Amino acid sequence: MAPTDRIRDHPGQGAPTVAAQRTRRRLRADQARQLADLLRHQLLTGGFPAGTLPHESTLATDYRASRNTVRQALDLLRAEGLVQRLPGVGTVVVAQKYPHGLDRLMGLAETLREHGDVTNEVRTMGPAPAPAPVAERLHVPPGADVLYIERLRRLNGLPLSLDLTYIPLDIGAALLGADLENTDVFRLLEATTGRRLGHAEITLEAVNADAHSATVLEAPRGAAVLMLERLTHLADGRPVDLEFIRFRGDRITMSGLLHRSL
Amino acid sequence: MAPTDRIRDHPGQGAPTVAAQRTRRRLRADQARQLADLLRHQLLTGGFPAGTLPHESTLATDYRASRNTVRQALDLLRAEGLVQRLPGVGTVVVAQKYPHGLDRLMGLAETLREHGDVTNEVRTMGPAPAPAPVAERLHVPPGADVLYIERLRRLNGLPLSLDLTYIPLDIGAALLGADLENTDVFRLLEATTGRRLGHAEITLEAVNADAHSATVLEAPRGAAVLMLERLTHLADGRPVDLEFIRFRGDRITMSGLLHRSL
Repeated sequence: MAPTDRIRDHPGQGAPTVAAQRTRRRLRADQARQLADLLRHQLLTGGFPAGTLPHESTLATDYRASRNTVRQALDLLRAEGLVQRLPGVGTVVVAQKYPHGLDRLMGLAETLREHGDVTNEVRTMGPAPAPAPVAERLHVPPGADVLYIERLRRLNGLPLSLDLTYIPLDIGAALLGADLENTDVFRLLEATTGRRLGHAEITLEAVNADAHSATVLEAPRGAAVLMLERLTHLADGRPVDLEFIRFRGDRITMSGLLHRSL
Repeated sequence: MAPTDRIRDHPGQGAPTVAAQRTRRRLRADQARQLADLLRHQLLTGGFPAGTLPHESTLATDYRASRNTVRQALDLLRAEGLVQRLPGVGTVVVAQKYPHGLDRLMGLAETLREHGDVTNEVRTMGPAPAPAPVAERLHVPPGADVLYIERLRRLNGLPLSLDLTYIPLDIGAALLGADLENTDVFRLLEATTGRRLGHAEITLEAVNADAHSATVLEAPRGAAVLMLERLTHLADGRPVDLEFIRFRGDRITMSGLLHRSL
């Protein structure tokens, strides 16, 4: 696969030095990562429709890699929880990552519509005084009550994200009696205000889950989390919805299209 | 801060039951996360210009939280490597996360221009036969040589990302003698082809770093990594650059604007 493969084919004369051994280990690890990245794309995009990866020897031939490199690549995918090894069957795809759109401002149930039912467990909901940075971003006086909502969101019953939401109370009050268990906040905001949402400023980060968040999301402590901070505005520009969302990294991908010119 | 704070203020009569203690612990952990999210936004956006957070008691007053909640929130930020506690000084900001634009297709040096110098350590570079999934996406015959490049990218000397890149050889050959150490591949592609890049399909994920990638990125094993897969096309639509990029989660945020209507 990589040009470096050729180096492995010419180990030189005599016993390998320690430096040569180290170089070879590094090269194999590099090649394993390279192969793992190609396989992970395929398995996340349904490239193995039967749900089973080809045999190691087939992969070795297809990717011009050594059996050791193939094994190490599969180890990487297994450590990520994307595949499992079943005796007598081979390596099977166990990952189920759902694509969250990154091109349009969409609620979770909207963007995952084709993939199943989103349900929301409301952990906390009620008016609370806005801390200064929340008040500033939502354009309300500091200390004014805002609606605070904390939800654990599931797709087909599996925990997907933990969402912390702040909404100015004049707009949020209408949500207090709404069906938050089964409806995106975005949809409720548009339904109760009779206005369309406009745009949102978003920031994405990868963080390790703290113990408490991991427990809530039913993920291992330290699991990689895709963290989304989003400030959503109505079409007239008014900020109405500040959110801090922790997506389980093993269940969500964000996909979109970027253009070179604006 | 949260409406749930009120519950803590009314612990009820007599000795707390085990269930009540558990509820209180959960509430405090929820409140700590909520506070940590607000503080993390501020510290990542330069909200503490002196680089020092206010005293715990000030934070407790400002955020209407208990001292215990404040302490727990600061613990979360410390575990993420965003702040440190210095005896006699207090809690200081140590995070340095750089904002990668998510609105336009940009190379790393372009998007981080204001933040310093991007340098690239070329770990591997040369022609290699394209594995089937690479060939398919780059529209070259399977097994045809493509240019493969592996780079460790640094900002002001600090490791930021590990990039694996595939480019069709008719376009990539011109890059073999180019100054890859100091120039984005995007810029080189536009300079050598005389054509503009058009768009890219991107996918973002949060993953835990495998041991080898962590070593290369000088990050702890299992550190959260922001993984970007990007297929970039020339303005005429031809795919010319397939990349697999691992950003250190503690050094990069991705920021952009989403619109409700397309």
